Amino acid sequence: MLAISMDVENVPGALKAIAGVIADHGGNIVHIQQDSEGELARLYMEIEGVERPKVLLSELRSLDVVREVRVLRPLKEIYGKRVIVMGGGAQVAEVARGAITEADRHNIRGERISVDTIPLVGEENLAEAVRAVARLPRVGILVLAGSLMGGKIAEAVQELREEHGIPVISLNMAGSVPEVADLVVTDPVQAGVMAVMAISDAGVFDLSRVRGRKF
Amino acid sequence: MLAISMDVENVPGALKAIAGVIADHGGNIVHIQQDSEGELARLYMEIEGVERPKVLLSELRSLDVVREVRVLRPLKEIYGKRVIVMGGGAQVAEVARGAITEADRHNIRGERISVDTIPLVGEENLAEAVRAVARLPRVGILVLAGSLMGGKIAEAVQELREEHGIPVISLNMAGSVPEVADLVVTDPVQAGVMAVMAISDAGVFDLSRVRGRKF
Repeated sequence: MLAISMDVENVPGALKAIAGVIADHGGNIVHIQQDSEGELARLYMEIEGVERPKVLLSELRSLDVVREVRVLRPLKEIYGKRVIVMGGGAQVAEVARGAITEADRHNIRGERISVDTIPLVGEENLAEAVRAVARLPRVGILVLAGSLMGGKIAEAVQELREEHGIPVISLNMAGSVPEVADLVVTDPVQAGVMAVMAISDAGVFDLSRVRGRKF
Repeated sequence: MLAISMDVENVPGALKAIAGVIADHGGNIVHIQQDSEGELARLYMEIEGVERPKVLLSELRSLDVVREVRVLRPLKEIYGKRVIVMGGGAQVAEVARGAITEADRHNIRGERISVDTIPLVGEENLAEAVRAVARLPRVGILVLAGSLMGGKIAEAVQELREEHGIPVISLNMAGSVPEVADLVVTDPVQAGVMAVMAISDAGVFDLSRVRGRKF
């Protein structure tokens, strides 16, 4: 993985030129985040599969639209995999407490795990937010924290698990979401701890061995 | 803002072709996230400045490398602006509790605010993580939660504030980070609440009116 930040002239076709050079080097752009500041755009890119990064960098630097190229550490190495927690505020906060405390213990030993949350209610809102998890980078697992979730939220959970392979932990709650989750946990702090354990590289906790169980 | 998800053939040059069509329409790609699944890549893009989106969509659909194009809701409308919290686990969890509880109150009334965290210690690690906040999408504010932060972390805070305009709240702690933050707050729960209030669109709390103060 090659991670670079470029200062690029804010003109149409700049990305086309850059993407062309990267494609010539067999590179596959997996992530771009752009911030524009007037004439210049700052383009952060993560690129896979580049065989000769030094040659690529010098060709990018020689493009007319490119002012500067810096090599950075990829975001996954800095922030790691993400536990996403969504649902009612009180319960999201408790799951986050468990997950942050457990992630702290992992990160102190050199891992990197983030805990990202959004308090959100309503079937439509939550179903949409669950589906959109597939568009977020670095997601390891989703925890649904609430007292009643079903219907379209359950459909979105199934889609996320089946089409995108993202595992889902549900609190023990009313509605059909617990039926379609990988794991059901009653205590929100434990749900957060288990979510971190499940995506940890150091893991002795194998989600596939407890799939379908309720704690 | 036009948000689309495309199923694209996983071949070199696919993005170049797509970027070319978008540039021809005056579009500016501000975000790309790619997931590859064998022959097909799923490309999520957020594009600004497109005047005739329907024509763009039909031209994208007619490209050889593009199998399917779906219009989606932009991530900012689903997950909103982000409060980022980093530092020691115990304090990150307390700041998160305040921020999640306050975000819940805002989101129930129709806003969207996320609270994203990483427990992390060490001057180098934290300085790098603070700097990398500039590469994350949708960041509204950063809260540093710990008992001692200074040196390179303070330099990174200054860079984030001055070069990227991202405000920083610091807990009242030892080290030089409180000196360079926009706001210093002693109680971690209040720090989280104030962070959400500061980036809320509904805000009666104006960070610029309390800048440099210590609570």
